[in-house]
Amino acid sequence: MGREAIDEQAVLQYLSMDFIIGYKLRRAQLAVFQDFIDTFAELKLRPAEFAVIANIAANPGQKQAAIAETLGIKPANLVALIDGLEGRGLAERRRGDADRRTHSLFLTETGERFVDEMYAVWRGHEQRLIERLGGEAERDRLIGLLDRLLEGAVVSG
Amino acid sequence: MGREAIDEQAVLQYLSMDFIIGYKLRRAQLAVFQDFIDTFAELKLRPAEFAVIANIAANPGQKQAAIAETLGIKPANLVALIDGLEGRGLAERRRGDADRRTHSLFLTETGERFVDEMYAVWRGHEQRLIERLGGEAERDRLIGLLDRLLEGAVVSG
Repeated sequence: MGREAIDEQAVLQYLSMDFIIGYKLRRAQLAVFQDFIDTFAELKLRPAEFAVIANIAANPGQKQAAIAETLGIKPANLVALIDGLEGRGLAERRRGDADRRTHSLFLTETGERFVDEMYAVWRGHEQRLIERLGGEAERDRLIGLLDRLLEGAVVSG
Repeated sequence: MGREAIDEQAVLQYLSMDFIIGYKLRRAQLAVFQDFIDTFAELKLRPAEFAVIANIAANPGQKQAAIAETLGIKPANLVALIDGLEGRGLAERRRGDADRRTHSLFLTETGERFVDEMYAVWRGHEQRLIERLGGEAERDRLIGLLDRLLEGAVVSG
């Protein structure tokens, strides 16, 4: 092997993935998203679609670029995602006067009814996560720690 | 709009993404991975590659299937990832006797030297995250909360 036993031990300890923040975050995020996807299987809704619909519901008439910015979604990905929501009759683009990129986004009436159902389903998912964490105080603690990671982040690109 | 003001208010409150666990987890995970990618730009190492190298270093001779299982990487993705590491001369597959799928994985000598450098670079990244969180006690608290989300997860597929 070419390593002394003590070095090997140090490597094993340091490379234990169990205390690596990014690794643990990713595993937890995948587990939570899997629960979300399973929960929303019948409504055929993925997490990014949920976020976009929630964002349009909270801010009717918002521009695509603003939603991409708020949610950290690449504009090209957002276009495809909104195409999908439009195809399902849940959302609609209304064209800006001059610049075609300044489409404003609205929910359709079907979309507004969908939001109510979406929210009811989502509550079950979120409640399950809160129970796993041990309660709302622990949920708040988790959100606070994640906010610290986000506040310190350098936004690149 | 077709909604009473009070309903609208409730929707706005509930759909505020700031308290949605999965959304916040995803944003924090992306920010941490971006820091990782920026930190490792010179070594051209992505988080999944880091995890695989660390895993081989900790368990030389491990089978591909075991690593895929441990790290939650799809076997097809792991094959492509290991192809890349092999192409860079960092890792090598040694063929199993009977079943070609049972390749065992080892670091090359170049790979063993790379691990030392990788770990040195990684320390800076991880230390930065710990400082953002407020210290090692907060890091441990975060890991503990993420473990609760993982322990309660139903493994599907």
